[in-house]
Amino acid sequence: MYRNLRIVPYLIFGRGSYAQLGDVLRPRRMGSPVVFLVDDVHEKKPFVSKLPKEKEDILLFVSADVEPKTKVVDELTGRVRSLSSHQPAAVVGIGGGSIMDIAKAVSLMLTNPGSSADYQGWDLIKHPAVYHVGLPTLAGTGAEVSRTAILTGPVRKLGINSDYTPFDQIILDPDLLAGAPADQRFYTAMDSYIHGAEALRGTFINEYSRAYAEKSMELCREVFLGDLNEDLEDEKLMIASYFGGLSIAYSQVGVCHALGYGLSYVLGARHGIGNCVIFNHLEEYYPEEVREFRDMVAKHHIPLPREMTKGLEAHQMSEMIRVALSLDPLWQNALGPDWKKVMTPEKAKELYFRM
Amino acid sequence: MYRNLRIVPYLIFGRGSYAQLGDVLRPRRMGSPVVFLVDDVHEKKPFVSKLPKEKEDILLFVSADVEPKTKVVDELTGRVRSLSSHQPAAVVGIGGGSIMDIAKAVSLMLTNPGSSADYQGWDLIKHPAVYHVGLPTLAGTGAEVSRTAILTGPVRKLGINSDYTPFDQIILDPDLLAGAPADQRFYTAMDSYIHGAEALRGTFINEYSRAYAEKSMELCREVFLGDLNEDLEDEKLMIASYFGGLSIAYSQVGVCHALGYGLSYVLGARHGIGNCVIFNHLEEYYPEEVREFRDMVAKHHIPLPREMTKGLEAHQMSEMIRVALSLDPLWQNALGPDWKKVMTPEKAKELYFRM
Repeated sequence: MYRNLRIVPYLIFGRGSYAQLGDVLRPRRMGSPVVFLVDDVHEKKPFVSKLPKEKEDILLFVSADVEPKTKVVDELTGRVRSLSSHQPAAVVGIGGGSIMDIAKAVSLMLTNPGSSADYQGWDLIKHPAVYHVGLPTLAGTGAEVSRTAILTGPVRKLGINSDYTPFDQIILDPDLLAGAPADQRFYTAMDSYIHGAEALRGTFINEYSRAYAEKSMELCREVFLGDLNEDLEDEKLMIASYFGGLSIAYSQVGVCHALGYGLSYVLGARHGIGNCVIFNHLEEYYPEEVREFRDMVAKHHIPLPREMTKGLEAHQMSEMIRVALSLDPLWQNALGPDWKKVMTPEKAKELYFRM
Repeated sequence: MYRNLRIVPYLIFGRGSYAQLGDVLRPRRMGSPVVFLVDDVHEKKPFVSKLPKEKEDILLFVSADVEPKTKVVDELTGRVRSLSSHQPAAVVGIGGGSIMDIAKAVSLMLTNPGSSADYQGWDLIKHPAVYHVGLPTLAGTGAEVSRTAILTGPVRKLGINSDYTPFDQIILDPDLLAGAPADQRFYTAMDSYIHGAEALRGTFINEYSRAYAEKSMELCREVFLGDLNEDLEDEKLMIASYFGGLSIAYSQVGVCHALGYGLSYVLGARHGIGNCVIFNHLEEYYPEEVREFRDMVAKHHIPLPREMTKGLEAHQMSEMIRVALSLDPLWQNALGPDWKKVMTPEKAKELYFRM
């Protein structure tokens, strides 16, 4: 049985394509409000003043300082309900991977009862989401194409995975990537490089995923080891993110993401930087890729935090290992069906202590 | 204004995935028949005996000996209507690019009145199609992902281009590619190589199309200049076709396809072989790509017909030129807005006479 891959059915790509958001929303409105969820780092940006916002619409600025939480999704959903007696016509997310995932989750929770924590897992969603549109302002996570909305809940960090999760429309405007801090831009972009590496070295790989993974990594290489102008770099990073996302959508991530989930669950480390810190210590699993990654880090003088796990209490380390090792599909992909013989809690602890 | 690209929203890829067709159709049936349109070269193939066909279903074998015609689409639509009092639940196309396009067109004509010739053009379709599924048995045309159904009508060869045209679901099973004659397999695969070349050398190119075009060509290179086993080749060709199709879906084809439309309109030449014959004479426009194409032709001892236009009557040549030069977007992509100054009827004639 092969997965029936759900793919975002409408895509606009191009510099300045943000201006088409109004046209995209118009036929959906029918008198109901549109909810805009925008990363609060953009609050004063000129593009926000050009949002195609009508008077009944709801604009909420959302912090992405920490990884998205089920609690935040539930609060936002509650706020939207309290601000509008009508079911919204659309939810629009504008931001990095966190805001993409929050927008997907809110669009699902507007039509599904209970808490978003109830739906962390696979195919637990019962009702189609409100129509939702994603406009990424950071490139790399692939959240704009994924069928998950990764949330930290009371018990675990795990996505809401369903066919209703992906956006109905994405608008990939490289102009929206301008102005991101260089470090953050790099950390996020490396997410797509790592997606490629984990897909290609994984046991779940197929020729569909391989083609996307190889091209995604090649685009990262062109951007971070080549000599392009920044405009062209941003365009290529946007496609690298999309390709990396599609690659893992039809295969699976691996060691770095599994350990990364544990790290963010306990330390709240952001996904991009956390993955970079971890990947740097995974030569054992991704030898050539880690070498190339270090070349990119060096060329761009990117600081990588050290000793992140130093001074952790024993119960925190156990929790980190518990979360990481609970991600069976990721380990199966990385190490095969007998992964538990290889990735013991002791081995995971040893890896974490390197960081 | 950028195009809002409609993408096939569900995809299954994998060897043996044909067996999942029944599962895909089940929730759609609701007591209405499924129409299977199958290339008649497959009539005796074992996979046809495993079609998930129920008693109310309609199975029609369709010839792809000539390029698809509006007349054939209209006849098939009439036959389906006469065989079933219910609107079908689904149309399933199984075959090469011609059958893909015929299945897309029949699914549209079951819900739109008149003749399919009335809809040759851009966005003339008014009503959504019957749910339709594509299973390609030749790789290269990209018809499994395109937003067109290319038909030869009474006046022109031109596609039914609309957001309702693309399949709702595709199943990419490399097993279905087995057994195609080597020449035909090559000619069809080269369609995706040529898509890549025309996208990359065109003026409409963007980084989305570029990434797909480059990877599609690279996959063709691996298959036809590398040393893989045939199973892996077929898997890669299936992805090359999909990527090449997406590349031109967000840019445009060029000189080879424009001249090819004229050639098939007048001589009924099949798309794949026609494109190969033409591309071989287009060093002027695609210098490196034509050289690499010739390497692939030579390595695989592929016969290319010669003197196809020899002995043509003057009115046939005029007609060929008229059809080719009517394709304004293709020439704009290939040669820029002032293309008419470059690609005069005399120049087109000179190119045709080389073939």
